[in-house]
Amino acid sequence: MELVNQADLDALFEFLPCRTPEAWIQEALKQEEILLQNHCYLEQCAARNALQLMFRCPDKADVLSKMSKLAREELRHFEKVHELLTKRGYTYKILKPSRYAGLLNAEIRKKEPGQLVDSLIVGAYIEARSCERFASLAPHMDEEISAFFRSLLKSEARHFKDYLALAQRYSEEPIEERVAFFGAIERDAIETPDELFRFHSGVPA
Amino acid sequence: MELVNQADLDALFEFLPCRTPEAWIQEALKQEEILLQNHCYLEQCAARNALQLMFRCPDKADVLSKMSKLAREELRHFEKVHELLTKRGYTYKILKPSRYAGLLNAEIRKKEPGQLVDSLIVGAYIEARSCERFASLAPHMDEEISAFFRSLLKSEARHFKDYLALAQRYSEEPIEERVAFFGAIERDAIETPDELFRFHSGVPA
Repeated sequence: MELVNQADLDALFEFLPCRTPEAWIQEALKQEEILLQNHCYLEQCAARNALQLMFRCPDKADVLSKMSKLAREELRHFEKVHELLTKRGYTYKILKPSRYAGLLNAEIRKKEPGQLVDSLIVGAYIEARSCERFASLAPHMDEEISAFFRSLLKSEARHFKDYLALAQRYSEEPIEERVAFFGAIERDAIETPDELFRFHSGVPA
Repeated sequence: MELVNQADLDALFEFLPCRTPEAWIQEALKQEEILLQNHCYLEQCAARNALQLMFRCPDKADVLSKMSKLAREELRHFEKVHELLTKRGYTYKILKPSRYAGLLNAEIRKKEPGQLVDSLIVGAYIEARSCERFASLAPHMDEEISAFFRSLLKSEARHFKDYLALAQRYSEEPIEERVAFFGAIERDAIETPDELFRFHSGVPA
């Protein structure tokens, strides 16, 4: 199994505004079923988002190519999480979503090219946070889930960079300011109390 | 390259209410750019439809598994058509859609389980017709496109059977009547004059 290298992981931790709070990790260890159900759903959502970007950008060959491959990988992950979930006797269901993606998506500009650039930056945060959560959880989970999460790190770390590179490519100005803007929202979503436990939720209330 | 076997293809021709009219094939040979642009788009649509069915059926493991694999294959096809199209100097764009899918989708029942069953039957027709068009075109196209279309036949022939098997599985009654109902619409869409030339269009008007 090809694993992520530490430098890639360090770049990702540097991009994110904060690490996952310890309290979330402790809660996740008690909520394996919800964690896997929601992870499974988020892989579907990641594929759908990539596909939606493809429909919005028929003229952008690099968006089409990167997003098509990304969607295929997310679907492959979906199949694997679903298999693991079923093997453990859990039933897949779509749960009420956490506030996380909604808080980020709400701030996406409504006009192009800002809309595309922001969508790509939000995509980068979602992928990076997922990757950071896999890395944070892996040492604490049983061998099977731990190995699975580690196997996901490599592609998820690539996805975040792909999103960010496309955001810069299609922005008329440097993206640092927008990245910092969404970073502040992301940090807030991760570090403040959250009623609902989910894969991307904040500190358990 | 693993090719479709004749028995699979015969089953598909038997399922479809008619073969592609010769006039459509002759038009397609003159409209290579539109054919490839539209083919490229339809692969994206096929992936989206499969993903939408996944979101509608979190409780149906076989729908999830079949549709996830199907979506991955369609995206792989999308990438290949896009590559071929670009190599030939064409520009990918999303064209005004043909009437074909709209005519079929309009007749999908609005309540479950009929809605799911009908959606799956329509999926079967779209996949089967695509496959039949690849088979009809392949002998007439240049070597590169011909080889590509032949390579698509095998998976498209499987997709149509997957859709049909799922439709029967989730129907409370035999599906023959609904299959015949949609078959009549499909035949009409293929055999009557059509203003717009597209991958699934009728007889060129």
